[in-house]
Amino acid sequence: MSSSVAEEKHRTDSANILLFIALLLLTIFTIWLLKRKRIRFLHETGLAIVYGLIIGAVIKYTNYNSSGRIHYLNMTSTNETPDVVVLTVDNSNFTYTKQVSTCQQLHQDEELQKITFDPEFFFNILLPPIIFYAGYSLKKRHFFRNIGSILTFAFIGTLVSAVVIGGITYGFVLIHKSLYEPNFAFGFIDCLLFGAIVSATDPVTVLAVFKELKVDVDLDALLFGESVLNDAVAIVLVSAIKKYQSATSAAFDSGAFFASLGSFIGVFLGSFVIGGLASIITALIFKFTKIGEFPILETSIFFLMSWASFLIAEALSLTGIVTVLFCGITQAHYTYNNLSAESKGRTRQLFELLNFLAENFIFSYMGISMFTYSHHKFNAIFIVGAFIAVIVSRACNIYPLSFLLNLGRKKKIPYNMQHMMMFAGLRGAIAFTLAIRTTCTEGEQMIFTTVLLIVFTTVWVLGGGTTQMLTWLNIKVGVDPDAAIPQESDNNTSTNNSDVSNAPTRHKYADSAWMFKNWYKFDQYYLKPILTHAGPPLTNTLPGCCYPLAKCLTSPHAYASSIENDSDTDFILNDDVAFGNQNQTNPPTLPPSGGATNMTEVKLEAVPQVAGDASNDITKRDANSAKNDVTVASEDVTITRPSGPSLFSSIHHEMAVEMEPVGKKEAKNQV
Amino acid sequence: MSSSVAEEKHRTDSANILLFIALLLLTIFTIWLLKRKRIRFLHETGLAIVYGLIIGAVIKYTNYNSSGRIHYLNMTSTNETPDVVVLTVDNSNFTYTKQVSTCQQLHQDEELQKITFDPEFFFNILLPPIIFYAGYSLKKRHFFRNIGSILTFAFIGTLVSAVVIGGITYGFVLIHKSLYEPNFAFGFIDCLLFGAIVSATDPVTVLAVFKELKVDVDLDALLFGESVLNDAVAIVLVSAIKKYQSATSAAFDSGAFFASLGSFIGVFLGSFVIGGLASIITALIFKFTKIGEFPILETSIFFLMSWASFLIAEALSLTGIVTVLFCGITQAHYTYNNLSAESKGRTRQLFELLNFLAENFIFSYMGISMFTYSHHKFNAIFIVGAFIAVIVSRACNIYPLSFLLNLGRKKKIPYNMQHMMMFAGLRGAIAFTLAIRTTCTEGEQMIFTTVLLIVFTTVWVLGGGTTQMLTWLNIKVGVDPDAAIPQESDNNTSTNNSDVSNAPTRHKYADSAWMFKNWYKFDQYYLKPILTHAGPPLTNTLPGCCYPLAKCLTSPHAYASSIENDSDTDFILNDDVAFGNQNQTNPPTLPPSGGATNMTEVKLEAVPQVAGDASNDITKRDANSAKNDVTVASEDVTITRPSGPSLFSSIHHEMAVEMEPVGKKEAKNQV
Repeated sequence: MSSSVAEEKHRTDSANILLFIALLLLTIFTIWLLKRKRIRFLHETGLAIVYGLIIGAVIKYTNYNSSGRIHYLNMTSTNETPDVVVLTVDNSNFTYTKQVSTCQQLHQDEELQKITFDPEFFFNILLPPIIFYAGYSLKKRHFFRNIGSILTFAFIGTLVSAVVIGGITYGFVLIHKSLYEPNFAFGFIDCLLFGAIVSATDPVTVLAVFKELKVDVDLDALLFGESVLNDAVAIVLVSAIKKYQSATSAAFDSGAFFASLGSFIGVFLGSFVIGGLASIITALIFKFTKIGEFPILETSIFFLMSWASFLIAEALSLTGIVTVLFCGITQAHYTYNNLSAESKGRTRQLFELLNFLAENFIFSYMGISMFTYSHHKFNAIFIVGAFIAVIVSRACNIYPLSFLLNLGRKKKIPYNMQHMMMFAGLRGAIAFTLAIRTTCTEGEQMIFTTVLLIVFTTVWVLGGGTTQMLTWLNIKVGVDPDAAIPQESDNNTSTNNSDVSNAPTRHKYADSAWMFKNWYKFDQYYLKPILTHAGPPLTNTLPGCCYPLAKCLTSPHAYASSIENDSDTDFILNDDVAFGNQNQTNPPTLPPSGGATNMTEVKLEAVPQVAGDASNDITKRDANSAKNDVTVASEDVTITRPSGPSLFSSIHHEMAVEMEPVGKKEAKNQV
Repeated sequence: MSSSVAEEKHRTDSANILLFIALLLLTIFTIWLLKRKRIRFLHETGLAIVYGLIIGAVIKYTNYNSSGRIHYLNMTSTNETPDVVVLTVDNSNFTYTKQVSTCQQLHQDEELQKITFDPEFFFNILLPPIIFYAGYSLKKRHFFRNIGSILTFAFIGTLVSAVVIGGITYGFVLIHKSLYEPNFAFGFIDCLLFGAIVSATDPVTVLAVFKELKVDVDLDALLFGESVLNDAVAIVLVSAIKKYQSATSAAFDSGAFFASLGSFIGVFLGSFVIGGLASIITALIFKFTKIGEFPILETSIFFLMSWASFLIAEALSLTGIVTVLFCGITQAHYTYNNLSAESKGRTRQLFELLNFLAENFIFSYMGISMFTYSHHKFNAIFIVGAFIAVIVSRACNIYPLSFLLNLGRKKKIPYNMQHMMMFAGLRGAIAFTLAIRTTCTEGEQMIFTTVLLIVFTTVWVLGGGTTQMLTWLNIKVGVDPDAAIPQESDNNTSTNNSDVSNAPTRHKYADSAWMFKNWYKFDQYYLKPILTHAGPPLTNTLPGCCYPLAKCLTSPHAYASSIENDSDTDFILNDDVAFGNQNQTNPPTLPPSGGATNMTEVKLEAVPQVAGDASNDITKRDANSAKNDVTVASEDVTITRPSGPSLFSSIHHEMAVEMEPVGKKEAKNQV
């Protein structure tokens, strides 16, 4: 009877999931023991692989699951393949639905039911929460201080890495061809595909050690930022290369190349726009409604909107994962500030849990699939080539780019940091997911096998050696991320790493590229005030002609504090004020004060207790200095302003000169 | 190319999920507006149905999804059906996997791809978190005060309800047969199945109103407890009836009947044991390790263990949902007390969110499936009969059982409460899930259609009328659940509902059945101290011969407080002490003090600040009176005890007589 078949299948499914739960529990317990004993050479992901390998071996050699029966049928006279086949066996009907697969060939023939998950399960269910959490938990302040370098490493570095790996492995493929298989079907584009897949770094182990040891914040930000963004680059690159591959079978096809390039850029922009839009809508909803009174509703909306961004991108044939990454970053940057305190905790904890479970599941599955996947292709020459390529490509990525970046960076990336970044080139969940997604051809199977080996080796060897490497490279640990900057400025010589602290400035931010600074100011003066409750009020920053709109969009909270003391932005602004005189007068993206005729009177009312805090705040300015409502807090100041921006710039400048009388300075700054 | 088919399917899937997300978002916003305006006539679930209906109609009449192509093949000469069919069309292979379905017939022929989910998806993915949350959020104290009545309503009431509904609808089926279709294939067992399915009440709407209005706690506990437990009864009953149905096709078959009865009891016990075991293991892990230092690990273990209980039950062919319910109740009762403060919040919030999303999803889906499900069977006579049966059966459940229970209850269930319980017989997610699980035959399709209509009507009419009904029945609202009991005792006459407060006792608990009291004491003196950090120390309560084991199992915290002041148990104990003299001397399930020769000296050390709180605590005893560490806290008392239980009973009794000297009373209580 077919209902008993259904029950049997359900039981097997339950037992399979149970196996993974048991594996996760085992990993969690062991990792807890290691954490208690402060053993850092094995991270939970490395351990999950080990347990996965053990269970995989047990499954393989105990014949845990039986195989299914296959029936081959030929059908010739239809012009379209059916979606459903109904088979009548002894007067019973059995329904068969089409297995939607990217492979044309069936290759799971003999071992059909061995624990395998649909590769799309990883891409559509497990990876999104991991990637979203990465974006959502970016340490914003230090990330944005290094944004230029991070983007350089992520974009140019990943491209360099993919090309270098592609080139080197192609050399080894040629050796293999000349020695053994002249007809080995693996061309340069396949090598490039491998290069793109394996260029997604995932230093989760390293970052966990960094967090525990409180490693230098800039190194942490550079590495974390690079790994988060280069996932996006690698994913889009892989899909662009596949598009190129499927469009052409000949040598170089410039049409297909430009189509792929267009797809690369288009997917990136599209994903960015959708992820950003989802966040903007969420942020605006939370800003203009009081839905935070019901945290469960607020959290649900947050979760559903973020998930929707993924689905919209997928429905539009963009890359959901990349969308979710941008969505995570922007949700953290804007929406998070509008959430109620409870929802802040809830969303963070929810995604932390999802991330933790999904990540460990993937690493367990990697271990298991080393044994249960029945089409591994071990090609010794390719594997050797791949390992060499991974090392060389990382060097070609980090050292030249660091050299170039150091030319422009105020705070140089010292050599020991470069070595550490070189060392932290681990591969993980993304590379695995990209590799397992298509394993139809022999070449793709070889890629999958090689990626597995690279992930295992890097996670165990590099992940395990992190603490040791930090000691060898003499990298600062025990840094309080919040106090790091003022500490450096107060006693420049006392830091034990002279490379890091020889920058001459007081508040320094690492990148000084003007594009980022300008973007940041635009964000600070317009986007944040529009999307969150943060100040400065738009009525001050927008030109006078937009006054009704500005008044409508500005949150009442914004009037209380003209610049929000959100911790991620203050450094850039301070830096500006303290020693960046060239940028100081006006928010640079402001329109010229054309509407100078309409005079607006703005009264900044001082709240008494704010004034009382003023002296404290001033002394604490180094640590968290953006509370510049203080500068005008001690008395009611009525300022007549001729145009939009100048009032703000005067207040802004006021902060820089540390509470000199308002009127005196103001005259100077009038445009 | 097949990869584009895969992409196309993926896009459609994404769009379908997106549709539900949009629906959920819409529901959330509307419900927020209603909450803000304090409109209570429409609960989120009712609203989800409305929106679902609208979207369902749009899908149906706009031909949103296209149908698939079906190919019929005949296969005769095999003795077993294959698991996979490979179809070769023009030299391309396409894989078809067997659709595992309980139906032998394919009935989704023409409208294959209209948004439908596998019914098992509800049973295995959506329902478990809902049911677990119901168990996990039981208001323990008031639940256990009424445990006897709740169990009566849940077990006997549900059975009565199923039989009455079965009988009445069978009458209507006979009318239908005599009037229209003499061959209508719908027998008494089918009616009984319908009765079991529709006996699962789900007064989520009513309870939401109760919570908001702070309705009388006993009414709330009775209704919530009944609805939670009767789900389990209905689910197991349905599977037992199905088992009976599949075993026999003739009239009454006593063998099959007893097999079904055995399965009913076996599934219940099995589920109870597995759910309980999962909780016990989790509780012990958290008690004896300090894994709470890492809340993410703790929360993960909690989540995985609870999920594992579901999967174990399913793998063993028991009912995972029932297991998960018991697991939820016991996790709340034991494990919750061992969790770190952060994990308490995390687990609650996590399951609250899952519950919220899953519940609203199911109700939306109900609305949608009213239109998109293409095999509705509307049978007017059956539907009329079903509605009458639902009303009559509820009356046959509530009134006679209340009458019988009132004979034994100290605190009677007044008539207005009975009317309210009668009124609150809403049907919801469980009935729907049970009905949609098998819709192969015409009879099952008729059941499904009728259940949908009953759910809609009860949710809208009864759910919407809750507030009005509370007013009409003059039921107390605005009751502080914690202060409710002392309030009653302090001014017995001031309560506006004389029915409720005419019980003569001071601390009263509603049920006085001895079995529950004894179980409760066993739980309090042995299970809780073994599984949690709560007191009394096992070294006191267990017989002397078990001393090493007891010492090993007792938490250091237990010595500090001899009875834990966990809020769910104090009433029963107090009650015992204050006026239940017959049960007072010893924990009744204790073994006779055989090992009386080994004298154990136990020193109860008083912590100074606890002593300082003593006077306060005594005066506050009515509200939360189990802080009986206080009774021995003001001085160091060294007690020589001859046998296990007597020390405890003396301390216990001490509490009752409000701090009389220890020595005087102790002599009395020696066995």
